[in-house]
Amino acid sequence: MSDHTISNGAASGNGHKTAGSALTTTPFPASRKVYVQGAQAGVQVPMREISLTATKSMNGGTPTVNEPITIYDTSGPYTDPNVTIDAKTGLAPYRRDWVIGRNDVIELSDISSQYGRLRAADPKLDELRFRHIRKPLRAKSGMNVTQIHYARQGIITPEMEFIAIRENQSREVARELASRNGHGGGVTQHPGQSWGASIPSVITPEFVRDEVARGRAIIPANINHPESEPMIIGRNFLVKINSNIGNSAVASSIEEEVEKMIWSIRWGADTVMDLSTGKNIHETREWIIRNSPVPIGTVPIYQALEKVGGKAEDLTWEIYRDTLIEQAEQGVDYFTIHAGVRLAYVPMTAKRMTGIVSRGGAIHAKWCLAHHQENFTYTHFEEICEIMKAYDVSFSLGDGLRPGSIADANDEAQFAELDTLGELTKIAWRHDVQVMIEGPGHVPMHMIQVNMEKQLKACQEAPFYTLGPLTTDIAPGYDHITSGIGAAMIGWFGCAMLCYVTPKEHLGLPDREDVKTGVITYKIAAHAADLAKGHPGAQIRDNALSKARFEFRWEDQFNLSLDPDTAKLFHDETLPDNAAKVSHFCSMCGPHFCSMKITQDVRDYAAQLQVDEQQAIQIGMKEKSEEFRKTGSEIYR
Amino acid sequence: MSDHTISNGAASGNGHKTAGSALTTTPFPASRKVYVQGAQAGVQVPMREISLTATKSMNGGTPTVNEPITIYDTSGPYTDPNVTIDAKTGLAPYRRDWVIGRNDVIELSDISSQYGRLRAADPKLDELRFRHIRKPLRAKSGMNVTQIHYARQGIITPEMEFIAIRENQSREVARELASRNGHGGGVTQHPGQSWGASIPSVITPEFVRDEVARGRAIIPANINHPESEPMIIGRNFLVKINSNIGNSAVASSIEEEVEKMIWSIRWGADTVMDLSTGKNIHETREWIIRNSPVPIGTVPIYQALEKVGGKAEDLTWEIYRDTLIEQAEQGVDYFTIHAGVRLAYVPMTAKRMTGIVSRGGAIHAKWCLAHHQENFTYTHFEEICEIMKAYDVSFSLGDGLRPGSIADANDEAQFAELDTLGELTKIAWRHDVQVMIEGPGHVPMHMIQVNMEKQLKACQEAPFYTLGPLTTDIAPGYDHITSGIGAAMIGWFGCAMLCYVTPKEHLGLPDREDVKTGVITYKIAAHAADLAKGHPGAQIRDNALSKARFEFRWEDQFNLSLDPDTAKLFHDETLPDNAAKVSHFCSMCGPHFCSMKITQDVRDYAAQLQVDEQQAIQIGMKEKSEEFRKTGSEIYR
Repeated sequence: MSDHTISNGAASGNGHKTAGSALTTTPFPASRKVYVQGAQAGVQVPMREISLTATKSMNGGTPTVNEPITIYDTSGPYTDPNVTIDAKTGLAPYRRDWVIGRNDVIELSDISSQYGRLRAADPKLDELRFRHIRKPLRAKSGMNVTQIHYARQGIITPEMEFIAIRENQSREVARELASRNGHGGGVTQHPGQSWGASIPSVITPEFVRDEVARGRAIIPANINHPESEPMIIGRNFLVKINSNIGNSAVASSIEEEVEKMIWSIRWGADTVMDLSTGKNIHETREWIIRNSPVPIGTVPIYQALEKVGGKAEDLTWEIYRDTLIEQAEQGVDYFTIHAGVRLAYVPMTAKRMTGIVSRGGAIHAKWCLAHHQENFTYTHFEEICEIMKAYDVSFSLGDGLRPGSIADANDEAQFAELDTLGELTKIAWRHDVQVMIEGPGHVPMHMIQVNMEKQLKACQEAPFYTLGPLTTDIAPGYDHITSGIGAAMIGWFGCAMLCYVTPKEHLGLPDREDVKTGVITYKIAAHAADLAKGHPGAQIRDNALSKARFEFRWEDQFNLSLDPDTAKLFHDETLPDNAAKVSHFCSMCGPHFCSMKITQDVRDYAAQLQVDEQQAIQIGMKEKSEEFRKTGSEIYR
Repeated sequence: MSDHTISNGAASGNGHKTAGSALTTTPFPASRKVYVQGAQAGVQVPMREISLTATKSMNGGTPTVNEPITIYDTSGPYTDPNVTIDAKTGLAPYRRDWVIGRNDVIELSDISSQYGRLRAADPKLDELRFRHIRKPLRAKSGMNVTQIHYARQGIITPEMEFIAIRENQSREVARELASRNGHGGGVTQHPGQSWGASIPSVITPEFVRDEVARGRAIIPANINHPESEPMIIGRNFLVKINSNIGNSAVASSIEEEVEKMIWSIRWGADTVMDLSTGKNIHETREWIIRNSPVPIGTVPIYQALEKVGGKAEDLTWEIYRDTLIEQAEQGVDYFTIHAGVRLAYVPMTAKRMTGIVSRGGAIHAKWCLAHHQENFTYTHFEEICEIMKAYDVSFSLGDGLRPGSIADANDEAQFAELDTLGELTKIAWRHDVQVMIEGPGHVPMHMIQVNMEKQLKACQEAPFYTLGPLTTDIAPGYDHITSGIGAAMIGWFGCAMLCYVTPKEHLGLPDREDVKTGVITYKIAAHAADLAKGHPGAQIRDNALSKARFEFRWEDQFNLSLDPDTAKLFHDETLPDNAAKVSHFCSMCGPHFCSMKITQDVRDYAAQLQVDEQQAIQIGMKEKSEEFRKTGSEIYR
């Protein structure tokens, strides 16, 4: 951490290419990709630096420089014009050296899963198949390659150092620059209310290690996904968001899915879940992982179900197990596993308004009922742990009994499952396997906080990962908003990652615009939560944007926003003239009516008041001194 | 209240006409306008009744009827196909009989304001002018015509009875129907957390009177706006929302403004503020009020400023006073008056990140500084009260010093002004004038509740009316969402009305789609707040929609939603086939993968378990009885 330098761009490549595909690789306006070097080899943390224009003096004096703002960047190499992008070869597997360097993995001669081998041998799939599939890595016999295992041994991995640098967002630089230039508002921020979180002012690699060791945070980083840029999920870090993609029985293609992933991370998705349920799930997933700089999550039961022709009762532990291994060797970073859907809880949902709405939950429930047996992911949980630790796949313990309506919020079934997830967390931790816990769903505002409190208690502070929650059921078409409200609140209360909801929720499959809207809505929720928690430095971007707004630096305002394109477009709709973007009045009020212009008068007045006050004090002192002289100039009377 | 009957449609008209204009008058799908009769003459309260289809039996049995849902309806006669709409004649002034019936008003022979007379006499404006301007009413000398004045005398006005019926939304009918049909989820709802609000399970006219008398609620109902359908703003009633319209120096026309108002109330705006700052403000306002079934608010200082050519320092009390009277006689229902922007507070804003961002606040601040004098609306406050009570215009005491950025939230200037608004509230109440208090602005989530608490205390529970608040500054283009989060929360905490924010906030003027998005976002916020407060019956619509969703009654789901058009459109984008809307699987998962279908199995299983349990009990009893016989059939051993 002592040795950070900021360099511009990675070494490779000599231009901005998207070989033969329609992947989005445009950098953000006025932004450049910077890389902060860590102490450990290969730790080179990407950030986005937004440059700002100077503040003009109201009186024609010298403009004041506004230092650039550095922000957390999830967009990966796609926004670096110095990196050559080719979806067919995938991203550089730069983390592979770290993994191999730990001397606890072997490279397998062939993939282990039966299904995977069948797909690999099928010549009909040649066209679809990613062409540069690496041989999978696996832990050596008896070894454990999870980040929590290293953390508990006191090892600070390169991943942990990477994350520490990343979470700090170079705000020590912002602080220094702000104090050097005397920027009043640069880094000041409100003290937050963190509800018991303990966020240090500087994130050190040791802090990252400690949080992972305690299980309060996870680093989803499969050894077979060396393309990923390490990130952390835990309530003492920045609140993260997840976006879902996936082809379904109804629509979609492989290229579209890869672009959806790129599109999601461009706008701020910290992880992406591939929820494909249609054809060629295996091949699609390979393409997505090879091109993804963010962790990829899946719900393996979806694919397992496809393998038995959609009949839940035909599922077996063996098919499921093979699916876990298949996906683990492709590099999936976390698995949603609905091991808390126990047979005994299923009847608790019978009188619900909306029964079981989780797909995974419903599949397991159906299987349990058909066989009159306990959920096989529950009975085989320790075997699953063995698989997880051989590849470092993190658990995302699914909330298969989450409420699907306001009416069903916080009911017996939901909390019974949560308690079981708490027990399973302990088992996973005994195996040194990383765990996060999924949460609801549909919850009215006043019943949100108790979800967080119960989760922290039942699951011993394992990170919480919630879908929304939606705070009302009456707005299909706007459920990104009904849920964004709940997401912001639960993020504030301590939820570590928020799973996005798009405007199409409950109605249909999200398109490109829906994905963007969902991601940005959730970025708002996560950031509002960071502000409310008092996350150190969270207010830097708000302050910079508000200062730009107040000073009519329109372009800076656009560039600092979560979505510069939309901000600029909306402004231009009213005042398309380019001159308007530099004019000292805003588009809402017109030239006569500018409240911000008037504030300059206020400042001049206040400054004058201060002068007057100074004068008054001086006059007072003069009077005092005259009085003093009159009374005979004796100091001690 | 004892005598409510539901009738279909008003008497007048014989079709669905929009004489020569492009006003939106389409009724909502599967909806009919119903009118509930009150006890007092002319009290006929419009509601929207949404009819639902029957629930199909899973086993081919008889379908179960789903009773219609009645909802609060702000859309006015525009959605009643039996009313002939003509913007040129305006809506029926049905409330005029009530006003005149109170025998405390006189009809003036001419309008009182100088400016109004000048406009009336200008032949160049003939084209623009509304053609059926009525002579204004005013209180007889020494009389007070405010609702709070009547309330304090123990009088239940027809307006109050109207409101009581309206607020109940016929939920006693829903309750009765639900219990008759044994609908489990029909009216059950979670107990809320109301933060000290006292919402009765049935709103009586007496309760309305009492709340108005205490000043805890207001009924904005100018005697010169007899077209309006009475509504109430107070924290023991449904949370309301306001939408802003207005032509500006930059764009817009009269017809567009009228349609914007109709468009706003169609989607749920409870009041509309006309914030016009451009040409022909006077004439535009007349058109809007004559066609508006919801209360209209304005910020009179905007027009006063126009009258002095945009130069704040040229404003005078006389011009302002004339503007108040001009607008009061047109029928404006509430005035935003920034009487809390006192000279002494202005310098407190000098060191802010974003100074004074309220236009009204900035104008008054500039005037104060230019003249080194106290704000004239503060010094003339009692005279303003005299005007307000002569027409029953309600105060909306403006927050001219509200924070314009996260950095400035909850600062000295903001709370100094709030304390002054509290003092002014007492003065207004001494005059029996209705008051609500405007609030911020930009506030991070954890600092919202203290705003509500301070307001309730400083302003003795006068209703709070906030803009958002925005919970972060970094998302221009999405400020309906950043603020929708804050609005939902402050609504829950006790805010009575939420002023909407559109996606164009900070960037430009909202168009039709922006207005709709803003209104629906705020309708979500208000409803989420009602649910969280535990407002009686708030969950009826959520339950009905979720039940429809779960039962694949797609059309019912669309029709029950806040925006049926968008819900249907989004669904059809994925599955355009009409058959999909009646099919028993949803568009996200395809035919194989339906979690809801599986729930039926769960229900069957649970039912079987219960049968088993019954059998077990019977077997147990048999065993007991055998044991009993074996032991010799002695009851007392």
